[in-house]
Amino acid sequence: MQEPQFQSVTIIGVGLLGASLGLAIKQHGLAKRVLGVGRTGSPSNQRALDMGAIDQAFTDPATAVCESELVVLAANVGQFPALMAGIAPALKTGALVTDVGSTKQQVMKWAGKLLPRSIDFIGSHPMAGSEKRGPENARPDLYHDALCLICPPKLRGRGAFTGSRVVAATEKMERFWRAIGMRTRQLDAVQHDQWVALISHIPHAAACMTAMVAGRNVDAGVAIAGGFVDTTRVASGDPDMWTDIFLTNRVEMTRNLNAAMQMLRKLQAAIRRGDPEAVKEFLQTAKQQHELLLARRNAR
Amino acid sequence: MQEPQFQSVTIIGVGLLGASLGLAIKQHGLAKRVLGVGRTGSPSNQRALDMGAIDQAFTDPATAVCESELVVLAANVGQFPALMAGIAPALKTGALVTDVGSTKQQVMKWAGKLLPRSIDFIGSHPMAGSEKRGPENARPDLYHDALCLICPPKLRGRGAFTGSRVVAATEKMERFWRAIGMRTRQLDAVQHDQWVALISHIPHAAACMTAMVAGRNVDAGVAIAGGFVDTTRVASGDPDMWTDIFLTNRVEMTRNLNAAMQMLRKLQAAIRRGDPEAVKEFLQTAKQQHELLLARRNAR
Repeated sequence: MQEPQFQSVTIIGVGLLGASLGLAIKQHGLAKRVLGVGRTGSPSNQRALDMGAIDQAFTDPATAVCESELVVLAANVGQFPALMAGIAPALKTGALVTDVGSTKQQVMKWAGKLLPRSIDFIGSHPMAGSEKRGPENARPDLYHDALCLICPPKLRGRGAFTGSRVVAATEKMERFWRAIGMRTRQLDAVQHDQWVALISHIPHAAACMTAMVAGRNVDAGVAIAGGFVDTTRVASGDPDMWTDIFLTNRVEMTRNLNAAMQMLRKLQAAIRRGDPEAVKEFLQTAKQQHELLLARRNAR
Repeated sequence: MQEPQFQSVTIIGVGLLGASLGLAIKQHGLAKRVLGVGRTGSPSNQRALDMGAIDQAFTDPATAVCESELVVLAANVGQFPALMAGIAPALKTGALVTDVGSTKQQVMKWAGKLLPRSIDFIGSHPMAGSEKRGPENARPDLYHDALCLICPPKLRGRGAFTGSRVVAATEKMERFWRAIGMRTRQLDAVQHDQWVALISHIPHAAACMTAMVAGRNVDAGVAIAGGFVDTTRVASGDPDMWTDIFLTNRVEMTRNLNAAMQMLRKLQAAIRRGDPEAVKEFLQTAKQQHELLLARRNAR
């Protein structure tokens, strides 16, 4: 248990990510009270209360945020504009607002436009989750030992993260994620979206494509082995969440889907003309890139 | 321990699959002697001997097969024509010959052309393996509880697997794989190659593509999480082995790579025009197909 960093924290969205965050905050004693916001009519609020992920449940975001020093948006990214506009007049002066969304450029733009200057918005992307959904799958260690990418806002008219208030808010944000066991790394929103397109969003599209190709004959499912299971695991992720992610990372997705199709076309041409050297080069390059990427991960 | 089915078994190729098979045969007491064939100058023969996967090591396939009632080709599929031609004159009359290759139409054609009528060739595809290679990664339970697809030869001029000799040889083959703990299923080579394209070969190509797209900026490796690791795991498989697989499943690979590219193109168009309904439909279809396929697997 640590000294509470906050009297009150509000988590908007009490699904897998929000409820797990509530459990982690409580486990580490980081807040005196955790308030949760779930949709009217959804069982999530009650479930989150029952499991002790939150102390109090709300359906109106504005009511839930007005006394909190930390507000975390844990809903789908597509809901952020409405949520931000809704909580803007109610936020406590000096509050720290963040999110757990998977894209950042669009989110930072919305925050700059919709949230008041009296608060600090620092973007967060904890690289943790699961293809499973809902508070019923929440666990206090979901975030443990994973990486949290943190995007401070750009100051208007300047290119760097300066300004003592932004620096202080970013540090506070990092302390929070570290306190629940995450590693943190700051980077700007453009670079963030480029990186996650490569290591998360394109892989998701590829897994979906793979499942759909195999779905051309579901009888083949009988012969599924471990390779297929792993390669397609993420394809069972939440379609609503991923629709928002793909659409808020449009430029990078479009660009990298082009690259993906070019690679498949090249492989197809090599197979069609029966060219072992070209097929082997494709496979060797993939193996090498794969090893380089994983080495980079392990070296962190 | 069971009653030995064979006095002598020869395994040509003592890498991961061959050495694991040797260990399994010995664990289950299925043969009195296991003979292995490794390449001249390769350390595999000595390693396989040291770990007890084989009793005797050879570098010349013809010398190794002449006394065995079961011969298993466990080398890369691309080496099969040379191996079959090499062992053909040396095979014992009545021997059962099989393989552990990942494609079957081409293999059955080669066997029909290159192997003598005095033996029976039954194609096998144990759906077991790993992205790791070599006898040093072998284990006696590699095949345990996995599925083995079995392809009997088509009788010339007829469409069905009839003929009492073929039936007897196929049954003997099934008994062997079952004795080391596998489930078995007979299907014809055409259907085999269609199925494995969908649930193994296209997923492999997709994993390679995903690794190569991410490799456009290896710095992004820092942010790799579990999704990327699973989605690309098979991309570190052996390029030589996979070159042979892709090239011996040319028609299915070409056809399904077309389908794969069409799906990515459709997704790209939906993202580019900012069409949430179309993006969500892509994701929902993938999730549904994925669930159908896995249900088919679990229902087996």
